[in-house]
Amino acid sequence: MSDVAATVLGIDIGGTKMAAALVAEDGEIITEDRIMTPPGDAEQVFAALAELIGRVRGDVRPVAVGIGSAGPLDLRHGLVSPVNIVGWRNFPLVDRVQALVGDLPVALGVDGHCFALGEFWTGAGRAAENLLGIVVSTGVGAGLVVDGEPMLGQSGNAAHLGHMVVDLDGEACACGSYGCVETYASGPRMVARAQRRGWRSGEAVDAAVLSADAAAGDEVALAVFDDGAQALAAGIVATAVTVDLTSVVIGGGVAKAGPVLFDPVERWVKRLAQLPFVTDLTVEPAQLPNAGLLGAARLAWNTAA
Amino acid sequence: MSDVAATVLGIDIGGTKMAAALVAEDGEIITEDRIMTPPGDAEQVFAALAELIGRVRGDVRPVAVGIGSAGPLDLRHGLVSPVNIVGWRNFPLVDRVQALVGDLPVALGVDGHCFALGEFWTGAGRAAENLLGIVVSTGVGAGLVVDGEPMLGQSGNAAHLGHMVVDLDGEACACGSYGCVETYASGPRMVARAQRRGWRSGEAVDAAVLSADAAAGDEVALAVFDDGAQALAAGIVATAVTVDLTSVVIGGGVAKAGPVLFDPVERWVKRLAQLPFVTDLTVEPAQLPNAGLLGAARLAWNTAA
Repeated sequence: MSDVAATVLGIDIGGTKMAAALVAEDGEIITEDRIMTPPGDAEQVFAALAELIGRVRGDVRPVAVGIGSAGPLDLRHGLVSPVNIVGWRNFPLVDRVQALVGDLPVALGVDGHCFALGEFWTGAGRAAENLLGIVVSTGVGAGLVVDGEPMLGQSGNAAHLGHMVVDLDGEACACGSYGCVETYASGPRMVARAQRRGWRSGEAVDAAVLSADAAAGDEVALAVFDDGAQALAAGIVATAVTVDLTSVVIGGGVAKAGPVLFDPVERWVKRLAQLPFVTDLTVEPAQLPNAGLLGAARLAWNTAA
Repeated sequence: MSDVAATVLGIDIGGTKMAAALVAEDGEIITEDRIMTPPGDAEQVFAALAELIGRVRGDVRPVAVGIGSAGPLDLRHGLVSPVNIVGWRNFPLVDRVQALVGDLPVALGVDGHCFALGEFWTGAGRAAENLLGIVVSTGVGAGLVVDGEPMLGQSGNAAHLGHMVVDLDGEACACGSYGCVETYASGPRMVARAQRRGWRSGEAVDAAVLSADAAAGDEVALAVFDDGAQALAAGIVATAVTVDLTSVVIGGGVAKAGPVLFDPVERWVKRLAQLPFVTDLTVEPAQLPNAGLLGAARLAWNTAA
């Protein structure tokens, strides 16, 4: 296989599924596979990941490995504690993957950072110099690319847009604070807000149903999306004036709502972004089905370079 | 003068006064002088600055020049338009200073960034790796140091903490948005809030009077400082979770209020900073009388290095 181009191994770890791919230096995916994240203890989860990695690598020796993982994580020590993988608490993921792949460089980042980096590399953010990437889903995650490089932060936790306080009189947040962007804009919080206002009370519904109803003109659903969009816009503008950037990409399950989310986000961003250096802020939908996996691969390429 | 140690020329430009100093590589000020910023047209203001620079330089040839200026400014083209120096609108300050000093490197930064960099260099932030510096005065300015370097941003406008939206139902801000930190925490806005609530109505008073009354136990004054502190804390925590930092220094005229401001800021920061990587956020008073001037000098040293 000596004529095979150099590749890196990208790994994307979430509570629902795990993916791995060999990725060339131009972002082309050579091989990709994914599995459902198994239940079980730390070793059972890792055994499934190791099997996936072995299958994707085959005989190929990549030049580096990049891992994107649901957080929180301890970047300094290579530990991960994904909220939705209960078997992994301070699990030494970097060391364990290192043991599988020998002396290759192994890089780790939060999934939100990898999402931003993937969209920056080959997706909706590829014309940008600086990019804020946001994942609106069960929670609200984010990542930053500054001067072409991921801005991970000293502890690996930069760009926590979901937990910016945008309403000093707001509701309690799962993080312990209140008035956070996430209390307005996450899928479950939007559904709960709508149900408190009489929308499909008592039904077991999710954000996809809420967005379908909003698209069909339901007034409560539209109002809740508007509130969520206002909070997201406040978080976007606050991040933009802090980091000094004008390009934003939004993905994740709730972003599949399309114009029901993006139209009010654009309207609110225009309203709140008044300082001259952010008046041309643009917000685009994500383009990649697997931005997190590609961003993990790009982390690996950055390490190999 | 061949045995004189190498120095840089630091320049600090504000609406009230202008300062210049020769500063050694360890932060020691060799010579310093300042003048009141004169009224007048662009050339009258620059003539006064040029005279000050000539006086401070004397026979010394510094190795670089750093300028901190009130904003806004256009970093890419070296233009400044300080709000309170009406004679300068898109004034080509970098080119004009360059013409005075010959072929030395000339660096420019916003005053808030220079404040943060000065406190980071030899003031309250000198033990920090990453620092947020905030100036609470007529407005609320700020600057960031990340990995030991000033984070100026692509347009030179990073760290606009004063214009983060922290209250979706908040009052209109001078910037055109609403609910910004500045609408709660700037000196004039705190005074206006207190007067609307009956404190010294109709009197021509400023934030110094308000802080003295708060220190003496006036309930309205205390409540207004508490509201300002809550908004500042929301901006501090939002910046901290975006950039991933735990050290904050606050200076400026309103910060002279002391515990009347710092006690509630610390209480609100503790309340709002719940994510594990920011729970040890520290907020300290500034230590330097001239952090902006020293930060401008440090910008020059960074350029010379």
